[in-house]
Amino acid sequence: MRPPVDKLAVIGQGLIGSSITRAVYVRGAAREVTVTDASKKVRARLLDLGIGHAKVVATALEAVRDADMVVICVPVSAIGAVAGEIAAGLKSGAILSDVGSVKVPVMAAMSASAPAGVHVVGAHPMAGTEFSGPDAGMPKLFVNRWCILTPAEGEDEAAVGKAKRFWEALGSHIEIMTAQRHDEVTSIISHLPHLIAFSIFHTGLKDEERGGSDVIKFSAGAFRDFTRIAASNPGMWRDIFLANRGPLVSAWRAFLEDAEACIDAIEKGDGAALEAMLATSRLTRRNVLEREHVSKLPDPDSTSVVPKLSRPYASDD
Amino acid sequence: MRPPVDKLAVIGQGLIGSSITRAVYVRGAAREVTVTDASKKVRARLLDLGIGHAKVVATALEAVRDADMVVICVPVSAIGAVAGEIAAGLKSGAILSDVGSVKVPVMAAMSASAPAGVHVVGAHPMAGTEFSGPDAGMPKLFVNRWCILTPAEGEDEAAVGKAKRFWEALGSHIEIMTAQRHDEVTSIISHLPHLIAFSIFHTGLKDEERGGSDVIKFSAGAFRDFTRIAASNPGMWRDIFLANRGPLVSAWRAFLEDAEACIDAIEKGDGAALEAMLATSRLTRRNVLEREHVSKLPDPDSTSVVPKLSRPYASDD
Repeated sequence: MRPPVDKLAVIGQGLIGSSITRAVYVRGAAREVTVTDASKKVRARLLDLGIGHAKVVATALEAVRDADMVVICVPVSAIGAVAGEIAAGLKSGAILSDVGSVKVPVMAAMSASAPAGVHVVGAHPMAGTEFSGPDAGMPKLFVNRWCILTPAEGEDEAAVGKAKRFWEALGSHIEIMTAQRHDEVTSIISHLPHLIAFSIFHTGLKDEERGGSDVIKFSAGAFRDFTRIAASNPGMWRDIFLANRGPLVSAWRAFLEDAEACIDAIEKGDGAALEAMLATSRLTRRNVLEREHVSKLPDPDSTSVVPKLSRPYASDD
Repeated sequence: MRPPVDKLAVIGQGLIGSSITRAVYVRGAAREVTVTDASKKVRARLLDLGIGHAKVVATALEAVRDADMVVICVPVSAIGAVAGEIAAGLKSGAILSDVGSVKVPVMAAMSASAPAGVHVVGAHPMAGTEFSGPDAGMPKLFVNRWCILTPAEGEDEAAVGKAKRFWEALGSHIEIMTAQRHDEVTSIISHLPHLIAFSIFHTGLKDEERGGSDVIKFSAGAFRDFTRIAASNPGMWRDIFLANRGPLVSAWRAFLEDAEACIDAIEKGDGAALEAMLATSRLTRRNVLEREHVSKLPDPDSTSVVPKLSRPYASDD
């Protein structure tokens, strides 16, 4: 079968970028791929790694020449600058895309730079590991993961269809939504949980500073889930938090209201109100499990750090 | 080798109680064991399950007769009542213990009920699964888990040593601390994370109520860690939160200060301050991993829901 993309360019070869580079050959998503990275060291490493038959070039502008699809895989805060840099080299009819975790500002920057005739279709593959850099990439990274596409308003349907087939070839399940809705949803399911995990880790650190080592020594169960999240790259998360500040601050205020209601009930010793709040969460959890069953997606736990429910775990229950 | 305990009584046969009952035979922690549960249905089920050679009796008072160690395995809010109920049946020299997740109020209640000559040594095995009831118990539940002992002030050293050997026989690693310190530590590593997980789940639910199903549909990565925590038993957590309200509210205030500092930096667009806060969390995470290495405990991940870091996971990184 003919690959959905003929000439692909991938700008940035960190975890996501180098995973795409590895995957396109294995999974037949593009006929040929040209890649680059701003770091000379990374470019040299790519040649050592010999990933597929990717052509490694020195500049982003060189990489996008004749490409019918360009995927920018650099930190959220750098996507706008790269889009500006490559604009003059984009051919008419090409698709300009990215893999950023925040979409409103990124779509605005890409749309502002794209010449007439270039289609802008943002993408957010919801996949990752705790590692970064070209050595961390893996061709299976996107298999059975969601990839959310955020086409520009009124974007050409053929271009959106091509981007969809590209990500499907990489193994992803596709959902199309506006950049605004994307940023709202991810502020709740990802950005706020990360912000909380970073913060609660500070709370543990303060206890350490008061002289106790117990918090870290016994950090099992729930707290360990937080420590894993808090181990994520601080520079990347700074960028994401700042880029999505509007929806993130709204999500924080909504969370704060819920949490303060629990704390209030605890301080007042109002067991009935407290239990009612806790029981609602359990109900929601059941919804999550039911939806997962209905969606018939392969068990995400099989390649996920999120564990199966049936295994024993360290906790204080 | 002679078991550390001669006649053991276990009151309450849920997940923890029935795991102890199963484990004492397999691991030689007690010569004989008598058990009971307030629920007639559970007592009948125990006979069906035929756990070891445990003797099942109808009342707690009957179960503790001649016991040299009694472990109360009922919800935190019911421990005081059970201690009162069995007080008259406790023989001099016996050890009175429990498995509650909160220790200050529980130790106070047990100490108030215990007749002279009975030793009070609280225990908190940091082990569990997401399931409950007698069918969920497993003899390996305590293996390579921490068990924190909180003896009454000035408690007899021989009694503390016997309780220690009992839990070591079940496979646990022992730490001894005051009830106060225990409650402070668990408020940070367990109770606050659970409170937050319950609350953030509400935040997701509100988005659902506004008509979107995306939050649940895409709940991968970080948010899924929270959903797992939020699936815990609401009644049990109501009791724990209320019983440990002082340290829990303090931990919440400390967390709130940290989280609001992050939100402030995000709203002001102060990237440098934000990154500095996030980087500190990463440093702490490194401490956790180093301590774990130093402690030479077997990898807790091997039987834990907390996953290894090297596996790919669904997230939005």
